[in-house]
Amino acid sequence: MTRQSQVYGAIEAGGTKFVCAVGDASGKILKEERFPTQDPASTLARVRLFLRRGCEEFGALSGVGVGSFGPVQLDRRSAQYGYITRTPKPGWSGTDIIGGLAREFSCTVGFDTDVNAAALAEHRWGSAQHVQNLVYLTIGTGIGGGALVNGKPIHGVMHPEMGHLYPRRHPRDAGFPGICPFHRDCMEGVASGSAIQARSGASLEDLDAAHLQWELEADYLGQLCAQLVLALSPQRIVLGGGVMNQTRLLGPIRQRMRYWLGGYIDRNEVLSDDSGYVVTPGLADHAGVLGALVLAIDSAAGA
Amino acid sequence: MTRQSQVYGAIEAGGTKFVCAVGDASGKILKEERFPTQDPASTLARVRLFLRRGCEEFGALSGVGVGSFGPVQLDRRSAQYGYITRTPKPGWSGTDIIGGLAREFSCTVGFDTDVNAAALAEHRWGSAQHVQNLVYLTIGTGIGGGALVNGKPIHGVMHPEMGHLYPRRHPRDAGFPGICPFHRDCMEGVASGSAIQARSGASLEDLDAAHLQWELEADYLGQLCAQLVLALSPQRIVLGGGVMNQTRLLGPIRQRMRYWLGGYIDRNEVLSDDSGYVVTPGLADHAGVLGALVLAIDSAAGA
Repeated sequence: MTRQSQVYGAIEAGGTKFVCAVGDASGKILKEERFPTQDPASTLARVRLFLRRGCEEFGALSGVGVGSFGPVQLDRRSAQYGYITRTPKPGWSGTDIIGGLAREFSCTVGFDTDVNAAALAEHRWGSAQHVQNLVYLTIGTGIGGGALVNGKPIHGVMHPEMGHLYPRRHPRDAGFPGICPFHRDCMEGVASGSAIQARSGASLEDLDAAHLQWELEADYLGQLCAQLVLALSPQRIVLGGGVMNQTRLLGPIRQRMRYWLGGYIDRNEVLSDDSGYVVTPGLADHAGVLGALVLAIDSAAGA
Repeated sequence: MTRQSQVYGAIEAGGTKFVCAVGDASGKILKEERFPTQDPASTLARVRLFLRRGCEEFGALSGVGVGSFGPVQLDRRSAQYGYITRTPKPGWSGTDIIGGLAREFSCTVGFDTDVNAAALAEHRWGSAQHVQNLVYLTIGTGIGGGALVNGKPIHGVMHPEMGHLYPRRHPRDAGFPGICPFHRDCMEGVASGSAIQARSGASLEDLDAAHLQWELEADYLGQLCAQLVLALSPQRIVLGGGVMNQTRLLGPIRQRMRYWLGGYIDRNEVLSDDSGYVVTPGLADHAGVLGALVLAIDSAAGA
């Protein structure tokens, strides 16, 4: 058994999979486990088991961080702080996702959305170091977005839900109704991995480069980036999630973002193709769990 | 000549009019002057004349604040800090709007957008006290938006330009092309006072309550509020500007905001009609100049 002085537990609680890790303050992951999200009781039991084993192996945890799919309650004054509130995911509405962790592991617990956490990780160790204002979007099964302003995550009345902004519909996509149960053809409804599958019967990587789906995806994601530039003025936009594994989307997305900005934003750092304004994550598919690690570290430091 | 210990200069630099004031740290305005915006040289000369007379009357200024129409350069590391950058307003592109003020009045100068300034004023003295995350929108000749996150204005790569977000077009408004020179039918292009005038040949107050224009305006502004809830999660949205003098817009705007949120946001403080989530300014048409006063006070305090 190796004992180190400062180790932390990190939980990326996703709607599709959970990623659990033990890591240190430098962002080094010492132990990791991934498993599919099942019902809350058995999933959270598996989380606690992982963390107990982490303690056995590396010593007491100095903090635990949880970055969760949402919507979640981030208001510390609320009795539901740390809960997933009302989610369409069966069985998960009203789940206390951090409950008991502080007591069981005798440590502080940091909590935020999965996407705010990923933004924190990209800020600390990834593609957005030294950038105080940034947006992190994940384009996967769904679409979610987190943001830092002046170096801190946006909370507010709830938390941003950028994936549910409405795009203007592409003229060649008029026949597709969209799949969001709340909004039908919001961004998540027309540009998530699930939407691609529903529209084209395949995932993007299996479609020929000339397939219309590529053009639609770049247009919608370019629009989303443009909307966020206008609403939030980030200094960088990081695009993660499974769909963005298709990195050749990046150029067309930048192009469509410029189209939708319509010449109004005159900053070269936004408009130039090689400026690194719209980028993929520096931490690849570890942004989420490393974000949970940042939450753990910061909670232990009293932030 | 009355002499007080701490007085400040405050300049709301609008594209249509300038409002100049001398005030104190409690938000009391001691002297005020309003005049139409002309060319930069004569307008800024008039500003300096006003401030000199303010000094004669009330003693040396402890700080000056300028809240300006934009786009502006807010990055202190830039050689163009304090400039209006590229604006369609003839003659004003590249105007150094704070130039010489610090030297002439031997004091600190605070600078921000007019709408970020108004958000600061509503936060300190108006409709959004004790609210750390808020959006201030002005719906007048144009549409602009500022925001505080964790109590501080959003800057980022430039500053938000919320008035240029795109709405989905109302089906009964399909024939109107929109008037924004950059985007045609963005929010400013279809819902500003100028757009109302262009579409209906009248201002809102002169149109019968049954006129379609009222329905269109509430729908577009409700959409804009919904977009900002999704992007920024504010705890309050303050709607100012000349168009909002028609306060009976407020109820229909709230209703359309809820429609566009599509049941996804489950917070009662957003959804309830009497929650005071979408409100008019507590400072009426003084939000802008009082915001400039906040900038002056905070700059003198070293913030």
